[in-house]
Amino acid sequence: MNGSPLNGRGAAVRTTGPAGRLMAAEIAEQPEVLRRLLDEGAADIRAVAERIAARRPRFVLLTGRGTSDNAALYAKYLIEILLGLPCGLTSMSTTTAYGARPDLTDCLVVAVSQSGGSPDLVASTTAAREAGAITLAVTNNAGSPLAAASEFHVDVLAGPERSLPATKTYTAELLALYLLVQGLRGEDGTTAAASLPDLAARVLARDAEVRALAARYRFAERMVITSRGYGYPTAKEAALKLMETSYIPALSYSGADLLHGPLAMVDNVSPVIAIVTDGRGGEALQPVLDRLRDRGADLVVVGPQAQVAAASAGFALPTEGLAEELQPVLEILPLQMLAYEVTIARGQDPDAPRALAKVTETR
Amino acid sequence: MNGSPLNGRGAAVRTTGPAGRLMAAEIAEQPEVLRRLLDEGAADIRAVAERIAARRPRFVLLTGRGTSDNAALYAKYLIEILLGLPCGLTSMSTTTAYGARPDLTDCLVVAVSQSGGSPDLVASTTAAREAGAITLAVTNNAGSPLAAASEFHVDVLAGPERSLPATKTYTAELLALYLLVQGLRGEDGTTAAASLPDLAARVLARDAEVRALAARYRFAERMVITSRGYGYPTAKEAALKLMETSYIPALSYSGADLLHGPLAMVDNVSPVIAIVTDGRGGEALQPVLDRLRDRGADLVVVGPQAQVAAASAGFALPTEGLAEELQPVLEILPLQMLAYEVTIARGQDPDAPRALAKVTETR
Repeated sequence: MNGSPLNGRGAAVRTTGPAGRLMAAEIAEQPEVLRRLLDEGAADIRAVAERIAARRPRFVLLTGRGTSDNAALYAKYLIEILLGLPCGLTSMSTTTAYGARPDLTDCLVVAVSQSGGSPDLVASTTAAREAGAITLAVTNNAGSPLAAASEFHVDVLAGPERSLPATKTYTAELLALYLLVQGLRGEDGTTAAASLPDLAARVLARDAEVRALAARYRFAERMVITSRGYGYPTAKEAALKLMETSYIPALSYSGADLLHGPLAMVDNVSPVIAIVTDGRGGEALQPVLDRLRDRGADLVVVGPQAQVAAASAGFALPTEGLAEELQPVLEILPLQMLAYEVTIARGQDPDAPRALAKVTETR
Repeated sequence: MNGSPLNGRGAAVRTTGPAGRLMAAEIAEQPEVLRRLLDEGAADIRAVAERIAARRPRFVLLTGRGTSDNAALYAKYLIEILLGLPCGLTSMSTTTAYGARPDLTDCLVVAVSQSGGSPDLVASTTAAREAGAITLAVTNNAGSPLAAASEFHVDVLAGPERSLPATKTYTAELLALYLLVQGLRGEDGTTAAASLPDLAARVLARDAEVRALAARYRFAERMVITSRGYGYPTAKEAALKLMETSYIPALSYSGADLLHGPLAMVDNVSPVIAIVTDGRGGEALQPVLDRLRDRGADLVVVGPQAQVAAASAGFALPTEGLAEELQPVLEILPLQMLAYEVTIARGQDPDAPRALAKVTETR
């Protein structure tokens, strides 16, 4: 019964072999990481936010690669909805390959990176600072080149991440960005987020449920993951995690974009995972869920119990009054576990996807 | 030899059956559409651009869905590189689902849409206008609700598009956006673009080459498409086109993002198509191409002859001094043809992908 290291009890050390040991341990660490960030990191983040807010940025640009780009997208929703500032994700090559030097006066440029070591992020952040931007790095390494290149730095305090697929740094980035945006609007986000560590631990304890879901995908040749609003970054991150560990081609779409073309690809051989946030994002996704059900899609829902009950299968999230904007921190957990379990079931090692390095030196 | 309607000679009427007749005809129309836009549309676009430039926008937000979202992404590169303005793509649900009302003073908001009929685009454009933005709609329908909701309108003049997969409206949107951005910086783009209609006709005449490439993908279960810089929107649009017609899961990544995870998925069962622009985007992609070759990937290149020669196969683009920023208008053509040919080879009808409607009513 407890053969998987994914038992969420902190004692997540695999004894039967090395495959996935690091990823399992880092998934299991997340409640502790979230608690540390709330207890030891929040005050620093609030102080950085106050100094940035005093500069009155009018636009925000966010930048990141891979998992951190998905965290940046989450921040984009927060900034547009909670902060009311126009916001974009950068196309890094315009700076690094084409030498674009837009006027960034009044712009806040936020670079998100686990390692803080990617040369293109350092180069684009340096260029942004020279172009007049307020620059902020959100990293898991206060001693990194990116932290040094930026005017401000936020440490997500996740501890060393040794598994190639990022897990605990993703949720730590999400929570740090949430606290930052709350700080930018003069609010303290720690009370709203206080239940997250316990809720996360409860989710992680349900590894048997995730293993049952994983059986659906062991032989899947492809997968579609969809959401809307705050859940959309979760869909993208889940797709990335599944691809880089199991190598299943996982395509992620906002529910609206799914109806503009890719829906043609969904049929009984393309299982769909929908991330349904308990709130307006989930409501906006409803017509998409209806269309998918009409087409007889195999639909697995991560979200409220009622949504799970109306689908083929799913994982009910214990959100319990948690604000919609904080639900992404929980939503990704069963999907990280799913990527882990599917990969183990396929006889591969989630810790060491072929072809990947931890610090990706794109330029 | 000439059994395919894709002969690029204008007489693109399939006589052997209805499958793909509309898509083939609209692909073949593109040289004429581009010429019309240069001859009859450019002056109006220039006039609109001058009126917008006089308002001195400081930040640009672009919005679209599906194919038009890919055209919007192309415009993002133009705006950052040529115009030097910070720029973002909108997350439409922040307005339509969450009711966000950011202060958009000094912001230019550009909505791109073939039909101009999608309710969410109309709603988000109306909200942007109320929030102080300068609003511009780029559509193929001057009488559309979106054109009416926007302060300014640019007509891409592509004529009625009847095939569900958008082809001629995509290249018309690209060229219109190019002319617009040149106009915003006080330049006339028509001279640089003058060779496009003839170059497009030469590409479209090479249907036999595309059919030979299509044979590679007839039985493909997935596909990865990559590029960097100006070619990246082409990669996204090619993936969308292949998916919505052939239903092959086609995953598109910027070359840099490909190295952050999805590369693990690329092996001898995931063929890769790389769009290599002749310029800095292609140079920045070079390390990614090297990695793909090292891994023994089946690599097909759309780009300069020398790049095609170094790959498994490809389609050499006759760019002949065409500015890098205009090459995307040509690059997509062999990929539209490829989507068409793969779909015909798989016995499906490119004109009528299952589950899709021409005007997608997302809200």
